[in-house]
Amino acid sequence: MIPSIEWINNKVKMIDQTVLPHDLKFLEFEDYRDVATSIKVMNIRGAPAIGVAAAMGMALATIEYKELPKEKFLEKMEEVANLIRSTRPTASNLFWAVDRIWDIISKYPDDPPMLSALVVEEAQLMAQQDINVNKSIGKNGAALLEDGDTVLTHCNAGSLATVQYGTALAPIRAAIEEGKEIQVIADETRPRLQGARLTAYELQYDKIPVKVISDTSSGLIMRLGKINKVIVGTDRVTSDAVFNKIGTYLVALAAKDNDIPFYVAAPTSTLSLHETVKDVTIEQRDSSEVSNILGKLQIVPNGVECLNYAFDITPFRLVTGIITEDGVYTPEELLKKYK
Amino acid sequence: MIPSIEWINNKVKMIDQTVLPHDLKFLEFEDYRDVATSIKVMNIRGAPAIGVAAAMGMALATIEYKELPKEKFLEKMEEVANLIRSTRPTASNLFWAVDRIWDIISKYPDDPPMLSALVVEEAQLMAQQDINVNKSIGKNGAALLEDGDTVLTHCNAGSLATVQYGTALAPIRAAIEEGKEIQVIADETRPRLQGARLTAYELQYDKIPVKVISDTSSGLIMRLGKINKVIVGTDRVTSDAVFNKIGTYLVALAAKDNDIPFYVAAPTSTLSLHETVKDVTIEQRDSSEVSNILGKLQIVPNGVECLNYAFDITPFRLVTGIITEDGVYTPEELLKKYK
Repeated sequence: MIPSIEWINNKVKMIDQTVLPHDLKFLEFEDYRDVATSIKVMNIRGAPAIGVAAAMGMALATIEYKELPKEKFLEKMEEVANLIRSTRPTASNLFWAVDRIWDIISKYPDDPPMLSALVVEEAQLMAQQDINVNKSIGKNGAALLEDGDTVLTHCNAGSLATVQYGTALAPIRAAIEEGKEIQVIADETRPRLQGARLTAYELQYDKIPVKVISDTSSGLIMRLGKINKVIVGTDRVTSDAVFNKIGTYLVALAAKDNDIPFYVAAPTSTLSLHETVKDVTIEQRDSSEVSNILGKLQIVPNGVECLNYAFDITPFRLVTGIITEDGVYTPEELLKKYK
Repeated sequence: MIPSIEWINNKVKMIDQTVLPHDLKFLEFEDYRDVATSIKVMNIRGAPAIGVAAAMGMALATIEYKELPKEKFLEKMEEVANLIRSTRPTASNLFWAVDRIWDIISKYPDDPPMLSALVVEEAQLMAQQDINVNKSIGKNGAALLEDGDTVLTHCNAGSLATVQYGTALAPIRAAIEEGKEIQVIADETRPRLQGARLTAYELQYDKIPVKVISDTSSGLIMRLGKINKVIVGTDRVTSDAVFNKIGTYLVALAAKDNDIPFYVAAPTSTLSLHETVKDVTIEQRDSSEVSNILGKLQIVPNGVECLNYAFDITPFRLVTGIITEDGVYTPEELLKKYK
């Protein structure tokens, strides 16, 4: 496992996930605008990772603007916060991270240089806390897995979606560390193929057995008895549903129809339980992500439009359990504990 | 609409569907071995079209072998039939077509030249009958569609999957001919992308409004209220389930969960009601169809295996109606009528 994002000498260093699995390339940014773009174009993706990227972007901005007069500084930082929030509108962590940084800014508005130092520290702390949270999710989720299980996952909620260790893949890593034999089946996850590219890459890198299937195959594979558990990540949990990568709802329906437990690994930073489905805007991305695979292979005739919603809504009735850093909860228990 | 397959001057002419939507290229074969290969590598695909291709392949073989002594001729034709049956083991029409040609061979085994002429005629008749059957499916299915409907389809069960006109797309064509406004949403249909490439191509060619979605999107699109009906084709209907392209089961689950009618367009040549799910072998195709999209874009790291089942099992409980050339039936009615 390589950290997907790091703060090094007032620069943000991240793996460029758009060129995996072919190249392992790193990007380094000193300008928060570049960090915002990297979130938008998905050099970095995954709810926890983009939360940390957002915080580090805010930190870069405080360094850039810290010598400005107070009012000007606050005005600029307001712009930065809005820019960063707009990059991926469905991701709860983005808002959570910006708010957490903003708390520091509001506390010390009179001293931009001092608050900048605090923000830089906070962003690095958030990265470390992300790893700690993921390890706890791993430990809590590993208890659900039995020796010999095959786990289906959708998209990439692994090390690459976090700073390190992953959310949905954390229970698998932890179970294997405990000595259990676990295999993974990864949905390829169109349109951007995070499962085929990233989940397969990071599990192979860590020598965890993984096979890839087309998104069309999960139902049959479950019917054939090849899956024991499903674990996915999430970008936002409202009081009635889990928001995660497009395609998650179909996997959940198939799991329900085949009596296979469907778990969601959700750091508490993704909980947004004051909201319901009606409050969430589903990000729509460009048609070309569907028509032209990874910008390299056009599969749709010229002139035919594609619909490209990035996230799916999985109602609580399809969710067996939600794994947070505190424990594993049914949706009802989750609401009782956190709402 | 261009016929996907034709018999012209003792040659088989077909559209090469592997290079659509970029090129409209035709293949011509005089050798039945090439026809068998064309079915296997999916130059031609779709249950009804490969039925006709199988019959035409048999016809080419009778021409090649008709001067042999009777015993030798029958021995060769037995080999040909086995070769053709082995190309796509899940497609019911393949067996149906080979059997239909074999009936003629068994009737006139003493006169290969004469039976060859009859077989050539029969293969052409089957092509014409396919079009007639599809028009009847269109008429029966059009009655289910209302003005303004948006229909989701999976894979390509259109003109390109048949000789002409299509099965799942036939009701849409017929409804539009009746003056209704109908729009289509096409699942891209990984791994071979028949929806993105072929359904989008043929509907655009015929000026029928179509949009493409990733296979991961059908559930959300239904939740958002953008789909009124689902119509898919089938490769085989047993007494308990519909076999169709991988991914169909997920679409059916989502339709059920959203109270959207799920119809299957099934020429009676696809009915195999003496069988149950247990009798059918699901074709497994090469891992590379998933890992390397259309042989052009590798999306999975080297050394990671993919599972690639070609067909899906959709149990009758998820099927609202089955549209044959005779009418529209619930699964129970279908069993009563045809079993």
